[in-house]
Amino acid sequence: MPGGIDPHTHLSMEFMDTQTIDDFFSGQAAALAGGTTMHIDFVIPVNGSLLGGYEAYVEKARKSCMDYGFHMAVTKWDDTVSKEMEIMVKDKGINSFKFFMAYKGALMINDEILLEGFKKCKSLGAVAMVHGENGDAVFAGQKRMIELGITGPEGHALSRPAVIEGEATGRAIHLARFVNTPLYVVHVMSIDAVEEIARARKSGQRVIGEPIVAGLALDDSGLWDPDFKTAAKFVMSPPIRGPGHGKALQAALSTGILQLVGTDHCPFNSTQKSLGIDDFRKIPNGVNGIEERMHIVWDSMVVSGQISVTDYVRLTSTECARIFNIYPRKGAILVGSDADIIILNPNSSFEISSSFHHSRLDTNVYEGRRGKGKVEMTIAGGRIVWENDELKIVPGTGKYIKMPPFSYLFDGIDKIESEYLSSLRAPVERFKATS
Amino acid sequence: MPGGIDPHTHLSMEFMDTQTIDDFFSGQAAALAGGTTMHIDFVIPVNGSLLGGYEAYVEKARKSCMDYGFHMAVTKWDDTVSKEMEIMVKDKGINSFKFFMAYKGALMINDEILLEGFKKCKSLGAVAMVHGENGDAVFAGQKRMIELGITGPEGHALSRPAVIEGEATGRAIHLARFVNTPLYVVHVMSIDAVEEIARARKSGQRVIGEPIVAGLALDDSGLWDPDFKTAAKFVMSPPIRGPGHGKALQAALSTGILQLVGTDHCPFNSTQKSLGIDDFRKIPNGVNGIEERMHIVWDSMVVSGQISVTDYVRLTSTECARIFNIYPRKGAILVGSDADIIILNPNSSFEISSSFHHSRLDTNVYEGRRGKGKVEMTIAGGRIVWENDELKIVPGTGKYIKMPPFSYLFDGIDKIESEYLSSLRAPVERFKATS
Amino acid sequence: MPGGIDPHTHLSMEFMDTQTIDDFFSGQAAALAGGTTMHIDFVIPVNGSLLGGYEAYVEKARKSCMDYGFHMAVTKWDDTVSKEMEIMVKDKGINSFKFFMAYKGALMINDEILLEGFKKCKSLGAVAMVHGENGDAVFAGQKRMIELGITGPEGHALSRPAVIEGEATGRAIHLARFVNTPLYVVHVMSIDAVEEIARARKSGQRVIGEPIVAGLALDDSGLWDPDFKTAAKFVMSPPIRGPGHGKALQAALSTGILQLVGTDHCPFNSTQKSLGIDDFRKIPNGVNGIEERMHIVWDSMVVSGQISVTDYVRLTSTECARIFNIYPRKGAILVGSDADIIILNPNSSFEISSSFHHSRLDTNVYEGRRGKGKVEMTIAGGRIVWENDELKIVPGTGKYIKMPPFSYLFDGIDKIESEYLSSLRAPVERFKATS
Amino acid sequence: MPGGIDPHTHLSMEFMDTQTIDDFFSGQAAALAGGTTMHIDFVIPVNGSLLGGYEAYVEKARKSCMDYGFHMAVTKWDDTVSKEMEIMVKDKGINSFKFFMAYKGALMINDEILLEGFKKCKSLGAVAMVHGENGDAVFAGQKRMIELGITGPEGHALSRPAVIEGEATGRAIHLARFVNTPLYVVHVMSIDAVEEIARARKSGQRVIGEPIVAGLALDDSGLWDPDFKTAAKFVMSPPIRGPGHGKALQAALSTGILQLVGTDHCPFNSTQKSLGIDDFRKIPNGVNGIEERMHIVWDSMVVSGQISVTDYVRLTSTECARIFNIYPRKGAILVGSDADIIILNPNSSFEISSSFHHSRLDTNVYEGRRGKGKVEMTIAGGRIVWENDELKIVPGTGKYIKMPPFSYLFDGIDKIESEYLSSLRAPVERFKATS
Repeated sequence: MPGGIDPHTHLSMEFMDTQTIDDFFSGQAAALAGGTTMHIDFVIPVNGSLLGGYEAYVEKARKSCMDYGFHMAVTKWDDTVSKEMEIMVKDKGINSFKFFMAYKGALMINDEILLEGFKKCKSLGAVAMVHGENGDAVFAGQKRMIELGITGPEGHALSRPAVIEGEATGRAIHLARFVNTPLYVVHVMSIDAVEEIARARKSGQRVIGEPIVAGLALDDSGLWDPDFKTAAKFVMSPPIRGPGHGKALQAALSTGILQLVGTDHCPFNSTQKSLGIDDFRKIPNGVNGIEERMHIVWDSMVVSGQISVTDYVRLTSTECARIFNIYPRKGAILVGSDADIIILNPNSSFEISSSFHHSRLDTNVYEGRRGKGKVEMTIAGGRIVWENDELKIVPGTGKYIKMPPFSYLFDGIDKIESEYLSSLRAPVERFKATS
Repeated sequence: MPGGIDPHTHLSMEFMDTQTIDDFFSGQAAALAGGTTMHIDFVIPVNGSLLGGYEAYVEKARKSCMDYGFHMAVTKWDDTVSKEMEIMVKDKGINSFKFFMAYKGALMINDEILLEGFKKCKSLGAVAMVHGENGDAVFAGQKRMIELGITGPEGHALSRPAVIEGEATGRAIHLARFVNTPLYVVHVMSIDAVEEIARARKSGQRVIGEPIVAGLALDDSGLWDPDFKTAAKFVMSPPIRGPGHGKALQAALSTGILQLVGTDHCPFNSTQKSLGIDDFRKIPNGVNGIEERMHIVWDSMVVSGQISVTDYVRLTSTECARIFNIYPRKGAILVGSDADIIILNPNSSFEISSSFHHSRLDTNVYEGRRGKGKVEMTIAGGRIVWENDELKIVPGTGKYIKMPPFSYLFDGIDKIESEYLSSLRAPVERFKATS
Repeated sequence: MPGGIDPHTHLSMEFMDTQTIDDFFSGQAAALAGGTTMHIDFVIPVNGSLLGGYEAYVEKARKSCMDYGFHMAVTKWDDTVSKEMEIMVKDKGINSFKFFMAYKGALMINDEILLEGFKKCKSLGAVAMVHGENGDAVFAGQKRMIELGITGPEGHALSRPAVIEGEATGRAIHLARFVNTPLYVVHVMSIDAVEEIARARKSGQRVIGEPIVAGLALDDSGLWDPDFKTAAKFVMSPPIRGPGHGKALQAALSTGILQLVGTDHCPFNSTQKSLGIDDFRKIPNGVNGIEERMHIVWDSMVVSGQISVTDYVRLTSTECARIFNIYPRKGAILVGSDADIIILNPNSSFEISSSFHHSRLDTNVYEGRRGKGKVEMTIAGGRIVWENDELKIVPGTGKYIKMPPFSYLFDGIDKIESEYLSSLRAPVERFKATS
Repeated sequence: MPGGIDPHTHLSMEFMDTQTIDDFFSGQAAALAGGTTMHIDFVIPVNGSLLGGYEAYVEKARKSCMDYGFHMAVTKWDDTVSKEMEIMVKDKGINSFKFFMAYKGALMINDEILLEGFKKCKSLGAVAMVHGENGDAVFAGQKRMIELGITGPEGHALSRPAVIEGEATGRAIHLARFVNTPLYVVHVMSIDAVEEIARARKSGQRVIGEPIVAGLALDDSGLWDPDFKTAAKFVMSPPIRGPGHGKALQAALSTGILQLVGTDHCPFNSTQKSLGIDDFRKIPNGVNGIEERMHIVWDSMVVSGQISVTDYVRLTSTECARIFNIYPRKGAILVGSDADIIILNPNSSFEISSSFHHSRLDTNVYEGRRGKGKVEMTIAGGRIVWENDELKIVPGTGKYIKMPPFSYLFDGIDKIESEYLSSLRAPVERFKATS
C-alpha cells in the first residue's frame, strides 16, 4: 500500500521556551520505521514574519531523509503578513495556513484576524486550518486551577474541558461558512467538536476533521498518574479526553464524518516536560505519534473491524494527498506516483517502547502497547529504507514537496460564491428598477 | 389576567447619534394601551460608567406612568465596573447585566470580558444576558456589502445572516457552561440560535431564550421594499429573518424551548431612520412593539391554537417576573400581588396603525395588521388606566421596581459548583496521598 | 406543598401469570407514607374488553385509602373497543389510553391499531400514552440471549437495549405528529428516547416525557448481581440503563424537556420473581417506587441543586394534574383545591429499607439508600394520615377522581387541524377553479 | 470517465395492475444514450417465490443491450424464502435484498420479517435495502384524503408526508443497528430521512443513503398542476417533496452523508397513469430518470460548484460498484476493468424532452430542461454504442453481472460482532464463577 502521510507534525519547533526533541532527521527516521513516507510540518513565523519562518524551516529541514511539505501558521495580521501569504502560496509551495484560537499571549489570534485570514485563504485557494480552543477561556480556566491549588498535570485537562473545544470549533465553522471557504480542523479531540463538524457537513459545508492518534487511542487517565514524569508526557492541547471521546472519534472516522488521521507529533522529553513540575502551564505541550500512527490506526480501526483496508489507506494517506493537492504523486500507487510504498503484514505483531523506538524521546505515550499488524518494509522514493527492523537512511535525501493551491476542496467554490452574489444583486437590481 | 411584562425595551436611549423617540412617558402610555403594565429597560453606561448610566436613567424615568425596572449593560471591563456591578445589585435593585457581542467599536465586548462578566454575575446572583451576534463578522459583512455597492436597507440583513447569530449564541452558551452561570439570550431571531439553545437545555444547562414579537410575527420581506422609509423601519439587529424562522421560533416557544416574549421596543421615526439613506450602517437600529406585543402574541399563538391561555400568561408575564425575581408581586393575581390586571376580550378585534397607536413613532412595523383578541381594560397598580380606548395616565405615578438577585435560576447553582470542585479536589487529594 | 401525584402505578395487576403484590390498600399506604396523595393506575382490559377491565378495577379499588384515577390500556382494536373508549371518556372519568408497543403476543399492538387509537384519542380529547419499545425486536433479542445461553436477569437488559426504546419512541412520536394528537411517553428510560422527545418538542410537537424514579436514580449494575434475588428485583421494562442515562434523564427533566416523574410501581416479591429463575423472560417485570418517589426526586434533584423547590412541586404534582385535567382540584394549594398537603422537612433525613417500608414487597430496589429531605406529615383530603412515622388510614376512604377530557394539551389542536385542512383544500379549490 | 451505474431501476416490472413501459432493451437504450453503462434492477418475487421471480427476470433480461445486475425483493417470510435467499447469493449472483416498509397489502412486510430478513442478509453478506415509508400510515393517510374528497394527484403527496418517511427510515436504521448489519436506504427523498441517516453515520453505523435524481432536482409543485396528465407523471413513492428538501439532499450528497445517486426509473406512460384519473391511489407510481441521471447530476451538482469531478464519478459509478462488490471490474478505468467509458463534454449542452428521449415513455418529468454538460460518447464493453447522438445497440449483447457477497460494508462486521458477544459472555462467566 502507499506510504503513510502524516498531515500534522512539529519537528525542531521552538515552543514554550524549549524545542521539540526530534529534528527533521530523527523524527523522519521514526516516521519511516513506522510506515510513514511523508509528513507535513507547521512552519512557525519568526516574530510574526512568514518569510522568516519559512527560511528557518528550510534550514531545519536540510537534514531530511524523507519527503516533507509545509503548512504555515499565521499569528498576527497586517499587510506584510497578507502579502507573505501570497508569496508562500505562489512561490514557496505552501497551500495551507493555520490559525491558533488558543495560546493567548503567544500564537492566538482573534476573530477579526480569523476572518481576514479566511478571506485571504479563500482568494489564494489555500486551506484554512484551526486549532479549535477558546484561548480566553483556557486562560481563565488555568487561572482558576492555580487558585484552587491544582498545579499538577491533571490541572492541564481540568483547565480546558471539551466545552471549550466545542465552542471554538463551532465558531471557526460558522465563520468559515460566513466567508464561504473550506475549513480544516486539526486535532479533533472531543465529542463536542465532532458534533459541530457533523452538523456542518450535513448541511453541505466543506469542513475537514482531523483526529490524531492520541485522541483516538488514549484517554485522560494517564494525566492523573501520581508520577509526574508519566503524567506530564500526556500533556498536549487540546487535552486527551475522558473515556468515551476516543470511541466516538473512531466511530466518526469510520463513516467519513472525520476524514484523515494525523499525529501532532510534538515530542518533549522528560527533562523538558519537567519545566512544569511546579506549574502545569509550563509543561511543554505535546505527545509523540509519528512512528506509531500507522500501527495504532491499523490495530484500533482495522483489526477491530471498524474500517476496511481501503478505508485505512484513504485516511492514513490518500485523503491527505488529495486535500493538500499532491495526489496522485503521493497517496497512491499509480503510474507517475512517487515510489512510496509500505508492506504491512497483518499477521505480524508490533510492540511500542521508548527503549527501542526511533524518536529521540525518552518516553512514549504508548509504552508497552502491543497489537496486530506490522510495517515490515518501507520504500521511500524507490529506496528500501526500512527492512528487517533496520533503517537505511541518509540525511539530505528527503525532498521538499511543493503543494499547489486550489485542491479539490475549492472545486466550484467560486461558482457557489458568484451565484450567491448574483442572488444578492438581483433584488438590488429590482430595487433600482422599481425605485 | 395579570398585566404583561415586557422584559426588553429601550426608551429614551441614545444610540447611533440619536435617541429613541419614545421616552418613559410615551413608551409606557403605548404599553398600557396594549395591556403591558411593567417593562424592564436597559440602562446604557455613560462612558463605560454604570453608576453614571444608572443616574441618567433615574432621571429619564421620572416621568413614568407605569412600573418599570432596569437591566444594566456592561460595555467595558475594569475594577470600577466590577465594583459598580456590585453596587447595582446590592443598592440599586438591578439583577441582570447585558453583554453585547456585536456593535464593534461601540458596545461590543470580547470573550475575555464576557468571561469576567459572567463570573461576576454568578457571584452576585445576577442574570447574564447577551446580544448574540459576532461583531467582527458583522463588521466584515457590512464592509463587503458596501464594496458590492449595496447600501440600502436590504444590505442590513445581508451583512449579518443567521449564521453569525448562531455562532455568537453558541459561544455565549458554551462560555456560560464553562463558568456555570445561568444565561439569558435576548432577541432570539433565528433557527440557528434556537438550535443552540435547544441543545443546551437538553443537556440541563440553564439557558433562557427570549424571542421578540417582530421575530415571531414578521419576515424579512419588508427590508426589500423599494420605498426607503418602509424598508428602513424594519431595520433592527439581529435582523428579522426570512420566512421559516418566525414559524420555528413560534414552535420552540410553544413547547418551552424558548421561555418568554419581549419586544426590543427601540423606536426611531422616519427622520431618524433617514440618517442612513445612503448607507444602511447609519440607519438607527430598532422596531416598535411595546404596544403590540400582547395582541400579536395572542393572535399568532393562542388564536392559531399553538398555546393555551395559561401558556400565554406565563410567557407574556409570569416567567419574566420569576426570572427577574419579582414574582409573585408581579406576574400573578394573588394576595400580595400588585393590582396589575388586564381584561383581554378574545371576541374583540384589534387593528394596528401609526395613525392611532400611542407611541410617538410615525410608522409601525405592523401597520394595517388586524386580528382577534383585544385588551379592553388595563388596571395598573389598582387604577384603571385604559378603558374604552382611552388612556388615563399621570406622569410620575410609575414606580421603580427593585429586583433582588438570586432568582430561581440560581437555585442550587452553588451546590452543583461545590460538587464539581470536590470532584476536582478528589484526585488531587489522592495525588497528594499517593505521591 | 401539595401532595404528590404518581401518574404511573400498577396495583393488583395480573401480569405474567401472577399479580402485583401491592393492592390498592397496601400500595396507597406506602404512597401516603412517602408524601403521595393521589395516583393514577392502569386498567388492563379483560380479554380485550375495556368495560370488563374497568369493572374489575372498580372492584379492586374499593379498599382505597387515598384518591386515585385510572388510565386505560388498549390491547386490541375493533368497533367495540372504539365504542368502549367513548364510554370510558364520557361516562367513566378516564381521559387517557395506553398503547403497548412491546409485550408481543400479550399486550402489544401494531402500527395500524396505534394509528386508529391515536385518532380516536384525538377525537375524544384523551391523552394517548405509549410504552415505547419495539416488541418484535425484544422478542428477537430474547431469543438470541437464550440461544447464547444467557438465562439470568442480565439477559433481560441485554435483550432489549436502548436502541429499541429509541426506535419505538421515535415511531410513536412520528405517528402522533401524523395524526396531530398529543402524546405521552411513559417511563422514558434512555438517552435515546430523550433525544427523540427533545427533537419533537423543538419543532413544537406536543409530546410529554415521563421518566420514572428508577430510571433517574439507578443504573443497570444491579442486574449483574450474582445473587438472583437481588438481580431479579431490578427487572423491569424498558430496562434500567447503564450509567450516563440516569444523569441525562435528570438533566432533561431539569430544563423541561421531560415534564413529570412517575414510578411505574409494579411490585413483585422474591417468590414471584423466582418464576424466572431459569429464564429471565419469566421474571415478572416491575420495580417499586410509590413510597420512595418524593424522597428520591428531592434528594437527587433538589438537594443536588438541579431544580428549585417550585420545579419539584411542578414535576411531582402540578404538571400531572394539569395534563390529566384535574388542576387545580389536585396539584395545588388553592381555594377549591382538595386538602392534599405534605410537609417535607429539608433538614431531616430519610432511609429506605424493606424492613420498614409500607409496601408488601419483601425487597426494595433502593435498599439502604439514605438522603436529605423527609416527608414528615401527609394530609389527604383534609385528614392527617401520616405523622411521626405513623399511618392513620382507613380502607374505603379514598375517592375515585374522574378526569375530564380535553386538558390543556388539546387547547387549539382543532384550530391547527382546521387550518391544515383548509390549506389542503385551498389548492383543491384552485384545482377545481382552474380545470 | 467510467460509465455510470444506476443502482435503482424497474424495467418490465409488473406493478399496480400494469407493467413499466420500458423493457430491458428500451430502458437500457435510454441509459446508454445518457452515459449509464450498467444498471441494477429489482427482481420482484412471483407469489412470494424468489426463484420464480429470478427466472422471470432472467427471461425479461434476455434482450439486454447493456450490462446489468439484480437486487431481489423479499415480500414474505418462511423457510423457503430463507433458503431461496441463500440460493440467490450463492448461485445466482445477487448480493442485496430489498424490504418494502410500505405498499400495505402488497409488497409490505412487518418488523418481524424485517428483523429476520436483516439477520439472514447479515449471515449471507448481502446488503439489506429498505423502502422507508410507514405503510400503515400511508394507508391511513390515503383513506383520509379520499374522505376529504381529494382524489387528484396532489392527494398522493398529501397522504404520505415526509414525517412518514422519517419514521420508517429511522426504524430501519435502529433495527439494523440492533442486528448489526449494513443498511442501504433507497430513494432518500426528504430532510427527515437525511437527519436519521446523518445521526446514524455520526455514531459509526454503516448506513448507505441513496437519493434519486427526481428527489435532488425536482419539487412537488408539479403534483398540483391542474392538468392530470402533467401532475400524474410526477407521482412516485416516497413522493417528491416541497422546495427545500432537494437542496438539503444535494448538500448531504456533497459531503458524503449520502453516498450515491440512483433513479428509481419506473416509467408508466400517460395511458397507464390515467388508471388513477379518479383516484390517486390507482396512479401507477414511478418517474423516469435512467437517461437523465448523468446529465442532471452533472448540471445540478458539478456545474453549481457543489462537487468536484472526482466526486461525480464516485457517486454516479464507483461507490455503487464498491457497495455491490463489483469494483474494480465496474466503476473504474483500470487494468482489468470492463471497458465501460463515457466522454462527457462540459462545454456542450443537453436538453431533455419526450420528443427525442430514448425511453418509450410519452412524457418526461424533466421536459424542457436544459443544462451544461453532455455525454457525447458512450463505450460499453469496449464498443462505441452512443456517438453523434446516435445509438448503435444490439439486443442480447448485455451481460448479467454476478455480484458476490461480503462487499467492503461487511469488512470487520464479524469482528465487531464477536467482540460484542464476548463482552456479553464476560459477565456471564463472572456470574458463573462467582455463584
